[in-house]
Amino acid sequence: MRIVVLAGGIGGARFLRGLKRAAPDADITVIGNTGDDIHLFGLKVCPDLDTVMYTLGGGINEEQGWGRADETFHLKEELAAYGVGPEWFGLGDRDFATHIVRTQMLGAGYPLSAVTEALCDRWKPGVRLIPMSDDRVETHVAVTLPDSGSTPDSGERRAIHFQEYWVRLRASVPAEAIVPVGAEQAKPAPGVLEAIAAADVVLFPPSNPVVSIGTILAVPGIREAIAEAGVPVVGLSPIVGDAPVRGMADKVLAAVGVESSAAAVAEHYGSGLLDGWLVDTVDAGSAERVESAGIRCRAVPLMMTDLDATAQMAREALALAQEVRGA
Amino acid sequence: MRIVVLAGGIGGARFLRGLKRAAPDADITVIGNTGDDIHLFGLKVCPDLDTVMYTLGGGINEEQGWGRADETFHLKEELAAYGVGPEWFGLGDRDFATHIVRTQMLGAGYPLSAVTEALCDRWKPGVRLIPMSDDRVETHVAVTLPDSGSTPDSGERRAIHFQEYWVRLRASVPAEAIVPVGAEQAKPAPGVLEAIAAADVVLFPPSNPVVSIGTILAVPGIREAIAEAGVPVVGLSPIVGDAPVRGMADKVLAAVGVESSAAAVAEHYGSGLLDGWLVDTVDAGSAERVESAGIRCRAVPLMMTDLDATAQMAREALALAQEVRGA
Repeated sequence: MRIVVLAGGIGGARFLRGLKRAAPDADITVIGNTGDDIHLFGLKVCPDLDTVMYTLGGGINEEQGWGRADETFHLKEELAAYGVGPEWFGLGDRDFATHIVRTQMLGAGYPLSAVTEALCDRWKPGVRLIPMSDDRVETHVAVTLPDSGSTPDSGERRAIHFQEYWVRLRASVPAEAIVPVGAEQAKPAPGVLEAIAAADVVLFPPSNPVVSIGTILAVPGIREAIAEAGVPVVGLSPIVGDAPVRGMADKVLAAVGVESSAAAVAEHYGSGLLDGWLVDTVDAGSAERVESAGIRCRAVPLMMTDLDATAQMAREALALAQEVRGA
Repeated sequence: MRIVVLAGGIGGARFLRGLKRAAPDADITVIGNTGDDIHLFGLKVCPDLDTVMYTLGGGINEEQGWGRADETFHLKEELAAYGVGPEWFGLGDRDFATHIVRTQMLGAGYPLSAVTEALCDRWKPGVRLIPMSDDRVETHVAVTLPDSGSTPDSGERRAIHFQEYWVRLRASVPAEAIVPVGAEQAKPAPGVLEAIAAADVVLFPPSNPVVSIGTILAVPGIREAIAEAGVPVVGLSPIVGDAPVRGMADKVLAAVGVESSAAAVAEHYGSGLLDGWLVDTVDAGSAERVESAGIRCRAVPLMMTDLDATAQMAREALALAQEVRGA
């Protein structure tokens, strides 16, 4: 079975670990979000790709869900001592190596997809990980900075990098708009459209529907390829009981005019894209609304509390795909 | 008193610490060797400048004489896990920060001299540290690689980077020639010639006369400025009892046809450049030979065993300069 998964960071990575357990013989291609990528200290950092790679490769910091296990932060301490920031982005000493290797390879002319493959040669994630595009796409968030009176830009409307919104501001101000800058001109990375065309099923893990999966779908050609693949497309709701399971998805849903509910996210994707949708058992009442939108819906436990629970979620997604296919 | 010091790495840095103790009110300008500089992992590394900066700024690893105190090597371990080398160059996690800041500033268009000044803003070495040149100069060593039969290039004559000769091969094969590549086209960095012209005394610490001080003198204009400054130029022998006090200076002296002795090094500099020369008490017998070359010579203890001993060496050098001036 050939499975294509569109993945953001932590949620996508954890779901993939469950999917590998649920379908050990499947050929899994992961199309990774690169809209979160950021240049820091002259280095190219790809948080979502690395979270998938570290999680599936056994190098992740399990507690925080991102970054490396057994990590130290001496380099970052020294950068701060030099007065070089930003200090709000937590790059550890081990993690830096990934960004240094990546930056060196990009500088030598390799596209990001080839670099990602080379990095995965070490991590052996057990999936084929492809960035959504080799072209630069950068998610920006329009915000009105709080009028603290203490900083010169307070009260101003500004477009800031997604990481600045997410990590520095912790989504503490409303996102007025989300713009994947560069997406319109971006081309899917080599292998992306081919993997979708050859897939038996396409899965949307409980990743952020706006800034993770939404950004991947914003690369011209990817949404169309999925819609036209003629195979079941099944997603898992990242919203449980009207709140994100993890992270701050509700903050960015508001920016695109979508309410924070499992049903609203399914409608946002739409029946033109989505064939099946899993909601949590607490949201069983919303199944009817989803189905009336033309999307088959099942209510199952959606909390990725451990690997067994996550694998069961993956099995439910594959079962729903099978059901959709048989329909 | 304005003192100009030409410095390499460990020997120069330790001498400077003694000089600061001996002449706390002096205005000291250090012209640093950059021929050892190397690009590693896409980063610009300046070992000699950093050794001076860390030593005088209180960040040095005292035991090894280079690199940072309280250092870890996680980043390097990870690079090795990615198969990215060289593994023979020991960059620590804290040290990496210096190279990242430097590389970012160089990429932003600042010359190395401005970058060095910015780095010193943090370290406050108590001297003005200027690289010999903002232009790239790279010391290469011609060697015949050992005919091990095990590597494809064994038995070949090759020009290798000085760091590869010094750190990887540990000077285990004879240096057949030493070439400061790029030196002929290099210009002294801003402030170098001005500092020499304004100096009351110029000192050569017990640094390597070929690959440290020799490289600085190979930048057109620096040797001439020192010779024409009309102030005492006093050096301290890095050779004690026919062997280098530290390091492998004898290996590179042979490449330039100079015997490994305190007197031969003085003659190598020559009376056109050098006015005074300190040899160790064990080499007191060679003073006559140095003096007959037109260079005033004194025999004093030259082992930098501790800060007091080093400060005393600096006092002796300044006293000899005074004596030369009065002559």
